[in-house]
Order: sequence, then structure tokens, then C-alpha cells
Amino acid sequence: MNTFKNRYDVIVVGAGHAGCEAALAAARMGCDTLLLTIDMDKIAAMPCSPSIGGTAKGQLVKEIDALGGWMAKVSDSSAIQYRTLNTRKGPAVQSTRTQNDKNMYSQNMKHVLEKADNLDLKQAMVESLIIENNEIKGITDNTGFEYVSSCVVITTGTFLRGTVHIGSSRIQAGRAGEFASTGLALSLEAMKLEMGRMKTGTPPRLHADSIDFSKFNVHGSDEVIKPFSFSTTKVTNPMLPSFMGQTNPDTHALIRNNLKYSALYGGQIKGQSARYCPSFEDKVVKFPDRDSHHVILEYEGIDSKEIYASGLGNSLPLGIQYQVVRSVKGLEQAQIMRAAYAIEYDYVSPLELTPALETKKIKGLFLAGQINGTSGYEEAGAQGLWAGANAAAKILGRPPFILDRSQAYMGVMVDDLVTRGTKEPYRMFTSRAEYRLLLREDNADLRLARIGYEYGLTSKAHWDEVSRIKTATEKELERINRIVIKPSDETNAFLTGHNSNPIDTGVPLTQLLKRAELSYDLLKQIAPVPEPVQDRAARQVEIEIKYEGYIRRQYNEIKKFEDLERIKIPLEFSFDAAHGLSNEIREKLNRICPASLGQASRIDGMTPAAISVLMVAISAFRQNRSN
Amino acid sequence: MNTFKNRYDVIVVGAGHAGCEAALAAARMGCDTLLLTIDMDKIAAMPCSPSIGGTAKGQLVKEIDALGGWMAKVSDSSAIQYRTLNTRKGPAVQSTRTQNDKNMYSQNMKHVLEKADNLDLKQAMVESLIIENNEIKGITDNTGFEYVSSCVVITTGTFLRGTVHIGSSRIQAGRAGEFASTGLALSLEAMKLEMGRMKTGTPPRLHADSIDFSKFNVHGSDEVIKPFSFSTTKVTNPMLPSFMGQTNPDTHALIRNNLKYSALYGGQIKGQSARYCPSFEDKVVKFPDRDSHHVILEYEGIDSKEIYASGLGNSLPLGIQYQVVRSVKGLEQAQIMRAAYAIEYDYVSPLELTPALETKKIKGLFLAGQINGTSGYEEAGAQGLWAGANAAAKILGRPPFILDRSQAYMGVMVDDLVTRGTKEPYRMFTSRAEYRLLLREDNADLRLARIGYEYGLTSKAHWDEVSRIKTATEKELERINRIVIKPSDETNAFLTGHNSNPIDTGVPLTQLLKRAELSYDLLKQIAPVPEPVQDRAARQVEIEIKYEGYIRRQYNEIKKFEDLERIKIPLEFSFDAAHGLSNEIREKLNRICPASLGQASRIDGMTPAAISVLMVAISAFRQNRSN
Ligand SMILES: Cc1cc2nc3c(=O)[nH]c(=O)nc-3n(C[C@H](O)[C@H](O)[C@H](O)COP(=O)(O)OP(=O)(O)OC[C@H]3O[C@@H](n4cnc5c(N)ncnc54)[C@H](O)[C@@H]3O)c2cc1C
Ligand SMILES: Cc1cc2nc3c(=O)[nH]c(=O)nc-3n(C[C@H](O)[C@H](O)[C@H](O)COP(=O)(O)OP(=O)(O)OC[C@H]3O[C@@H](n4cnc5c(N)ncnc54)[C@H](O)[C@@H]3O)c2cc1C
Repeated sequence: MNTFKNRYDVIVVGAGHAGCEAALAAARMGCDTLLLTIDMDKIAAMPCSPSIGGTAKGQLVKEIDALGGWMAKVSDSSAIQYRTLNTRKGPAVQSTRTQNDKNMYSQNMKHVLEKADNLDLKQAMVESLIIENNEIKGITDNTGFEYVSSCVVITTGTFLRGTVHIGSSRIQAGRAGEFASTGLALSLEAMKLEMGRMKTGTPPRLHADSIDFSKFNVHGSDEVIKPFSFSTTKVTNPMLPSFMGQTNPDTHALIRNNLKYSALYGGQIKGQSARYCPSFEDKVVKFPDRDSHHVILEYEGIDSKEIYASGLGNSLPLGIQYQVVRSVKGLEQAQIMRAAYAIEYDYVSPLELTPALETKKIKGLFLAGQINGTSGYEEAGAQGLWAGANAAAKILGRPPFILDRSQAYMGVMVDDLVTRGTKEPYRMFTSRAEYRLLLREDNADLRLARIGYEYGLTSKAHWDEVSRIKTATEKELERINRIVIKPSDETNAFLTGHNSNPIDTGVPLTQLLKRAELSYDLLKQIAPVPEPVQDRAARQVEIEIKYEGYIRRQYNEIKKFEDLERIKIPLEFSFDAAHGLSNEIREKLNRICPASLGQASRIDGMTPAAISVLMVAISAFRQNRSN
Repeated sequence: MNTFKNRYDVIVVGAGHAGCEAALAAARMGCDTLLLTIDMDKIAAMPCSPSIGGTAKGQLVKEIDALGGWMAKVSDSSAIQYRTLNTRKGPAVQSTRTQNDKNMYSQNMKHVLEKADNLDLKQAMVESLIIENNEIKGITDNTGFEYVSSCVVITTGTFLRGTVHIGSSRIQAGRAGEFASTGLALSLEAMKLEMGRMKTGTPPRLHADSIDFSKFNVHGSDEVIKPFSFSTTKVTNPMLPSFMGQTNPDTHALIRNNLKYSALYGGQIKGQSARYCPSFEDKVVKFPDRDSHHVILEYEGIDSKEIYASGLGNSLPLGIQYQVVRSVKGLEQAQIMRAAYAIEYDYVSPLELTPALETKKIKGLFLAGQINGTSGYEEAGAQGLWAGANAAAKILGRPPFILDRSQAYMGVMVDDLVTRGTKEPYRMFTSRAEYRLLLREDNADLRLARIGYEYGLTSKAHWDEVSRIKTATEKELERINRIVIKPSDETNAFLTGHNSNPIDTGVPLTQLLKRAELSYDLLKQIAPVPEPVQDRAARQVEIEIKYEGYIRRQYNEIKKFEDLERIKIPLEFSFDAAHGLSNEIREKLNRICPASLGQASRIDGMTPAAISVLMVAISAFRQNRSN
């Protein structure tokens, strides 16, 4: 008789943004995958802002998408606002940002999981890990049921010993209204993983009908909607505006006068909070000169009356929250539907992880998302895909799935985390990426489709499609590079008509295209394109030519970067054997175990001298070994 | 400066099926109402079957609808299957049953609440009640914030000290994955309300793709959909089928062999479970001769893969649940997405309540729904509306909103609860209603629109609309009563053609209509209707005539019932002064404080002799008082 199935190739714990991508990635690679989560009605929940993407984060989402992940596609099916940020700046920093119907997002992601091949989705609270000889063997749920697997990915977000703070009250919860995860935290602690506390928070949700929107500036969706996913062809939801207002001296005085009641400033909270995602208390304290900050109101759903009040995050008692909110122009009568709160939770130091996001101490145990000290849905999603792919790669006997800093924002993030660790919630910025001119949203699939296809994360059809764009781009680049525009009245009329200097000698078309005021599309008028070029290819051609110099420079830098990166540090190499390293650096090296000299060079406090020492020691080690 | 609003006319705690109707009713009556609930993403959640309505329960839903409540309307906006049950039986037992997309139901109800006038919806866990001199003054949430009100309605369902059982594991939870409510339970206990433990349970949810549906019989939705609400004109969702299969001797053997592991039979659970909604263990134990029970599979949502496996509810460990499920034909490979579980929770004896559902001990404190020892969404919704209307009536200085047993199923239920109490989860049956031939679904609005309008629960427009149907019915009845059908070849051909005896003398049309084989619609062929009659009126005419004798008899019984009902027992009357009552009956009378001799007569153990004693004592008391 059939009993039950409790053996899986890969088990993922937690169906947040990391867990969903992790499970889907492992399943796409053909692994028999199990996804367990505390509450199946809260899958891919957004406990804070209803938005996905934004500067640098949009790049992550496009990369997830390029690797067959789902965040962008699900956002396209639930978005209620689209904006391309930084359209006036270069393509490197242009990012997509959507605002989403939260319930729709969650439901749509749930349906994706439910329909995925090789994936079982189940509701369960994981209570402990089964470990033998420093290898993971499975997990046990809170009813005592065991699931067996040699690869487990933990993506439990803010749930490990989560504590919600509102004023002086503390509530054990993984998010407002949800169970904290205690057993699992103890299980991780027992493995002697280095853990710490972090803190994040969320603003209040207000009732739309209690707001005087006329006191706010309306920001609409982009007029031309560019879908988030490379594969989305149509967006059908209605679009909704958001509203921009600001705090004022009264608001700030209220915060100052009540700081002692704040969980954050009253000393209740010990966890480290993000510098980059400050609560409103933080902003008032840290920028004492400013007497106004932005408040942005965003709908949380198409039919919902809940309004996300971005900028007003705090951990004050509800009574004071009301005063703060109501001091803002237009919010005089605001009704708070959900109180703002701060949450403190355990994280595991990402220095415990290999670049595959596997713990060094327990083989087969992977961690992804907020548990690694990051913050943000997109950071979580990207790590989830990464860890899921690595768990699957391990099962399938493939090399780890690792992208380096020159290939993807994901690579930057993971390298940052496992090389430098983090003491405060880590979030992605374009400034973290040295080669950001190459790591654009627009070329995410062009960059990653091949590796995605090789790992089984994406289909042959996807790879073919991307190849077609690449080929078309090359063909068009070649063609355009050959064209020289001759001076003529017509041409010069065109140029001056577009505020561009006329020409008096033959000029390569590429040179004209480099001019800021001229675009690929415009130039078609004086240099007609013999046969239509795919939009995506045309855009690539335009960027490649316009930013040619910068791009070339970045490629040169990457070469240097790769030189160091290519010098791998053998697993058996002992840092203790390398003479001439300071104790501090030696200790760090031993702890982080960098996989390459490149990674070693990025460790905090590393010196050029130490790198030279290492380089010599490694080549000596290699020689010894080959003898 | 504006601070906050924390004073309300009526506060409702809990946005389950009872709480939503309670808050909406109070708000419709014009009271400034606050609805607080632990998790705003779980409003009107259906923790068990995805269905609304069914025998007797459908009547309750139609009554809620007739009084302006929302259950039927929200179901119409989220239903994925409609069935009118018992269509071959008389109109008294015909009931509507819908199967619903659970997430849609919850979201749609949330939007109704968000959009309602006079209603503030907020997420908060109520921790304690503020009581002074046996009067309710407000509540405190778990952050210490106070809301002030002289009327509070508690509708906390299964949450008071809820304990989820799966095998030997016990988890403190109000429902799987949700916080139990402990502070509030202690608060009620401290008021010396009589409380007890009850138990209910839910079957596992299976993944659709793991089921071999070919082994089940398909049951589709009704071909002609009759909306649930009197006001719904169109239903737009796609309809989905359900699937009928059965358990077998293997299944039953598995249960018998593993009974000791069941929370219910292993002695873990002390709470009283419903006889009428038994778990599968119960069925196997209580019907040892049967070797097969129904298993009905129902979709939980349009796009969801979750399948509700009705009939397989149990509290066994997950490993055994799998064996039980997989022993059923067609479920050999079934994947359990959510485990079955039993839940134990505190309830308050409804004998603590007045017929207004107000506690006798604490003025202004109302209880409604599962907390009163009932079970079922519809029972909860009906009590919610009732308690909300009574809280509002109290604020507005109106008499209590009370329907008697001859007016509504609601009246039957509340009278049962407050007069006889309940020791096991109480659910509605048609057999509980003495006058069920009059308490039909089809006439719920005709019965209740006037009182609904008088109390401000429904609009003038609604009352006008219902009046039109009433008038049309009367007019048509009058017309039809005057018509005599003469024998003719044509007429007799028609009659014999419909398997009806021919006539040889003039026969009143009403007499023909009484024949089972003839309907109002058919008879139009031999007695044309001069001007079109509204469908609803025509249906009423048909029922009134077809069941005339039964209906008349019920009206006569109601007269007798009313005679006793009309003898009110003054609040000041002391049962101790009535000589000749047994101690047991006196004690019960003192506890229940019946409002009328009618109610007294329905108290468990009451005798005709005791009623005579009471009647005499009451009239003596009245005479004394008027002297
Ligand atoms: C209040 C709050 C405010 C935030 N504010 C911001 C912000 O301002 N900016 C920002 O960038 N980010 C913010 N975040 C963080 C952002 O929500 C997270 O970074 C992101 O959701 C993390 O994704 P994740 O997948 O790592 O975890 P989550 O999305 O938290 O998902 C964790 C999942 O794990 C499940 N789980 C936990 N324990 C168990 C267990 N034992 N067994 C089974 N399942 C388990 C949970 O049910 C959940 O589904 C905030 C988060 C919270 C809670
Ligand atoms: C596992 C399970 C199985 C069931 N099986 C059946 C069945 O087979 N047949 C049947 O007829 N019925 C069944 N029921 C019962 C049915 O679900 C309930 O009768 C119905 O939902 C009760 O409605 P209610 O409004 O009284 O409470 P609920 O629908 O339970 O709603 C209670 C609400 O109160 C809120 N709340 C609780 N405490 C607080 C607090 N302190 N502060 C603020 N809010 C609070 C909760 O968040 C929730 O929203 C089952 C219930 C459960 C949980």
C-alpha cells in the first residue's frame, strides 16, 4: 500500500520571496522539490511596501527573470503601477519599479507554485533540522513529521525569534499577526552558526477615505508601460496613482518629544537597523536640520482601501502614531488600519556561507534571503534563486551556480555577503556594482540566458530567443559600423533641426549616434534601415555605441578583475602556512575561506601586501602538490 | 491638534462571519462602529469547507440577506458552484448552497467592510475588556491601546485559548497558523461567565494534480444559477464541478488500528464535538457496520490547486493521515497540502445571554458566533447580525431586535441557545424549526423586510421593492382565487397530457394548482394571465396555494405559540416567589430568566404543571404591582 512521500532532492523552508524562487529554481532544474511554509495564505507576502524593483533592485528582478525566475512575471500579473526610474540618466541606472496589488501578488505566486512540475507545496512549521556528522539529513515539523533530504534551503525571513515592537509592547511574531519561528532558531544556534539580531520596520496603513488627497501631488503610472518580465507581452490590470506629500516641523517635534516612547529609541530594540531604510524616528534624529521629509501614499490593492504611508515607519505607541500621522497635511483625519511596527529577528552571519550560499559548517544546508542579513524582496528573491540552483546543482553533481561581480548584481550581492559579511540589513545599490554599466536591466537576459540554459533554469526556447536578439544586435552593429553619413543640405537640416551640429565632411553614423541629442530611432531618418531591426536589438546597438568608451573601459577592468579571480585558492590550502600575514588577516581568511585571490582581495582590511604573500604561497602550494 | 478617535458607539471584536455581519449591521443602523480583528488578511476566512448555505443554513443566509446583511451577496461575487438542494422536496426544505473561492470571498468581504459608512476596520488583537460596575466600557489591545464604547460585541470564533491537535502534538492557535486569543479568554473567565471547551475539525487539503478524478463521480453546478442574494442580478465567475467518491474497508481498518494515535480518541481532546459534523474517526467508530462513507472533493478557488476533501476530517498524525487518504480509490498518490486537524477552544454558555445576545452579567457586552457554542459560518453570520443590531438598538434607545421562532430560523436558533443552552456545537437543521413551512428561503425577505426597514437595517428602496412583490402576490392570489376552469376538450387534453385527471365540472383554478403534477407556469396555458406577474410573486402564489392546508395549520399553531409568547415575564418578577416549582426548575428559571411564558415553556425539563404555576404567579405579580 501507498503510504507517503517524505524524501525529496531539495527541501525549501519558507515561501517568502526567497523561498518561492529557491523552490522554483530547484524544480526547474529537475529536482524533486518540497516547499514548506507556515501559512499558505501568506505566500510571497509583502509585509512592507507594495512595490517590487526600484534602483538596483529592478536589476536584480530582471536577472531573476532572465534565469527563469518568477518575481517579474508575477509582478506583471498583479501590478497597479509601473515606473521606469532615472529615465533621464544613463541606461545603467534605469530601473523598473512596480506597485502591486498585494493579495493578487501572493495568490498569483501561490498558483505558480501549485502548478510547477517537480514541486510539492505544503503548509508546515519546521521545528528542527536533522543533522548527522555535520551533514543535513532532513527536517522535522511541529507535529513531529520528518521530511528527508540531503539539501535544505532555509529562507525564513524575519521569522526566527521575531519580536514585534509597538511602543513598549513586544509581541512574539514573525510578522504582525504571524507565528514567530523559535524551534528552528534554536536548531541553527545549536549548530554554532554565528547569529545576531537585526531590526526593520513598516509604516502604518491608512484608510483611503480618511485622507484628503487634494493636499498631495499625484504621481501616475508611466504612460507607456514596459512590462517587468522579458516574457510578458501584455499587462491588463488598471493602473493607480500614488501621492506625494511631506512631514512638517510639527511632525518632527512630535517625534522628538516622544522619542523615549519609541521602541527603537527607548532602548527596547537591540537589533541593528538599516541605515538605508530608516524609520521616521531615525530620519528625524539623524537629520536634525531638516524639517520636512517625503510621505508617499500608495494603494495596496485595486479594490483595497488600505494605503501604504511610505516615510512614516516608526515603533511608537499607537496613540503617538496617530498624532504623528495626523500632523501631516492631508492626514488630519487619517484612520490607521494597521499600526506601524518594528520587528527584531535573528539572522545568520553570511560569513558562515560559501559563495554557493551553503553553510560551511553543515553540508547541504543553504540559507537565502533576510536570514542572511539582507533586506528587501528583490535581494531575497535573487538569493533564493541562487541557493535553489546551488542545492539542485549539488544534487545533480554539477559545479556550483556562481555568477561573479562582472556578470550580475546577484554576483555582487552574494560576493559582498560571503566576503565581507554584514552587520546591518544589506540592500542593493548600483554603487555596489563596479561594472554597473554592463549590468543593466536591458541586457539581463543577454548576460544570463546562456548560463541559465546550461544549468537547466531556462528552456531551449528561451535561449534561442535570446540568441536571436544577440545575433540581430551583432548584425546591426556590423552594418551600422560600416555606414558613413555624407554632408548634404538634407542631412544638415535634419541635424540642426534636432539641435545637433551640422557636418561638413563624411562622418561615421556611429559617431552621430554618440551625440546625446540623437537617438537610433531618429537617425533612421537620414540613414534608413534596410530591413526592420528588433526593438531589443536596436536598443542594444544604441547603448553599445553611445557608451562605447565607458563600456570598453569596464571590459578592461573586468579583465584585471578576472586575473585575480582566476587564481583559485585550493580548498586544502592552509592560510596558516602563508607566512607574513597579520593575525587579524589570517583569522579572517580562515573564517571566510575565499575561493579565489579575487575574493580574498575584497575582504575587509585586506592589503596589497597580504595579497602578494598569498599569491606566492598559493603558487608554492600548487607546485608542491604537483610534485 | 487632532489626536485620534477611540470612542465608538459599538465595537466588534473579530472579523469572522459573525463579526462582519455584526459590524455591518450596527453601521447600517447608523452607529459609529469599530471592527477589530487579529489579521486583516483573514477576514471572513473559511477554515473548513468552502461552502456557504445548505439545508437550513441556506435559510439563515437568505434571512441575513433580507435584513441587509452581506453573506449572500459576497458569496454571489465569489461562488464557483451553485446548487439548490432538495428541489424534489417541498419548498420548505429547499436550500441554496454555494461553493466559493475562499480567497475571493475573504477579499470581497474585506472590501465591503472597507467601503461601509460608519465603520472603521482595524487590525488589532484585543487583550482585555474594560468593565466597571458590571458594565462594559471598552477594550484594550495587546499594545495597551484603549478603545471606549458602551457596547462591545465579541465574535472570536475558535480563537479563545484555541489548541490545534494533530496526533499527539498540540499547538496553541486560533486556527492553523493563527494566534490563539488568550488574554480575552482570561478576561471573560474573570467575569465568572460559565465557559467550557468544544472541539471541531477539518479535513486535509489535497493537491488537485495528485488526484485521479476519473475514479470519482462528477457533480456539476446547477444549469440555471439562482443567485444567493435577493439583490444579485448576475453571477460572473466560472463554475467548477465537485467530485464524489467513497472510503472503503481498508480506510476504516486504518482508522480502527490507529485510533490510539488520534487526538480525539487518544484522550488528548476533552472538548465536546458535534454529533452532526463528525470527524471521520467518529464516523468509523459510531457506525461500525458501515464500510464506506462519502468523500467529496471540492475546489477551494478558481485558480487554486487546493482540494477540500470533505469526509476525511481527522486528528491523526500526518503519517497516518496519508495512509488513510491514500487508501481511498483515486487518492492513491494524493499529496496533502494542509494537514487535517482538530481544534479545541473555549466557548461561553449561551445561557449567559439574553435573547438580545447580551450577557446578563455585563451590560453592553454581546457575544455572537462560535463563541456561543455554535458551529458553522451561517449560524455565526446570523448571530452576528442579530447581536450587531441589538448593540445598535441599545445605543439608539430602541427595543431589542428579536425575532421569534415563527418569524425566522434566526429566531429559532437564538431562542434555542438562550433557552436550552448547548453542550455540543449547535448547528441549524430544518427540524429545529416548528414552522418551517413558513420559514422558507423564497420568502425570507417577504417575512423580514419590514422589521429590517424599521430597524434601519435595510433601505426604503428595499422595503418598497419587497412591498411590490407582496402586493403583486396578493393581487394575483385574489385574481386566481376567482377563476373557475370549465371542462372542455381542450382543457382535458391539456390535463391528460400532463398526467392529470380530466375534469367534468367547473373546478377552481386553485384546486388544479394544488395537484402535484401541475404548476403555476403550466396552468397559464389553460388560464392565460391577463398581465405579466413578477416571477417572485408567481412563485409565492404557487406555494401559498399548493401548500394552503399545511400553511393554514402552521398559522394556527403560531397563534397558540403566540399566546404563551405574549405573556411576558416582568424583569422584576422573582421565580422564588412562585410556590410549587421544583428546585431544579426554579434554579433553571433563575439562571435563564425567560422573557416570556413561551420561552419558559421551552426550557429543558419544564412541565405543563410548572407553566400553570408560573402563569398564576405572574398574573398575581401583575395585579399586586398595579394595586
Ligand atoms: C515589518 C517589516 C518591514 C520590512 N520593511 C522593509 C523595508 O522597509 N525595506 C525592505 O527592503 N525590506 C523590508 N522588509 C523586509 C522584506 O520583507 C524582506 O526582506 C523579504 O520579504 C524577505 O524575504 P524572505 O524570503 O527572506 O523572507 P519572508 O518574505 O519574510 O518569508 C519568510 C517565509 O518563511 C516562512 N517561515 C518562517 N519560519 C518557518 C518555519 N519554521 N517553517 C516553515 N516556514 C517558515 C514564513 O511563513 C514566510 O513565508 C520588511 C519586513 C518586515 C517584516
Ligand atoms: C478547523 C475548523 C474546522 C471547522 N469545521 C467546521 C465544520 O465542519 N462545520 C461547521 O459548520 N463549522 C466548522 N467550523 C466552524 C466555522 O468555521 C465557524 O463556525 C465560523 O467560522 C465561526 O464564525 P465566527 O465569526 O464565530 O468566528 P471565526 O470565523 O472563527 O472568526 C473569529 C474572528 O475573531 C478574530 N479574533 C479572535 N480573537 C480576537 C481578539 N482577541 N482580538 C481581535 N480579533 C480576534 C479572529 O481573527 C477571527 O477573524 C470550523 C472551524 C475551524 C477552525
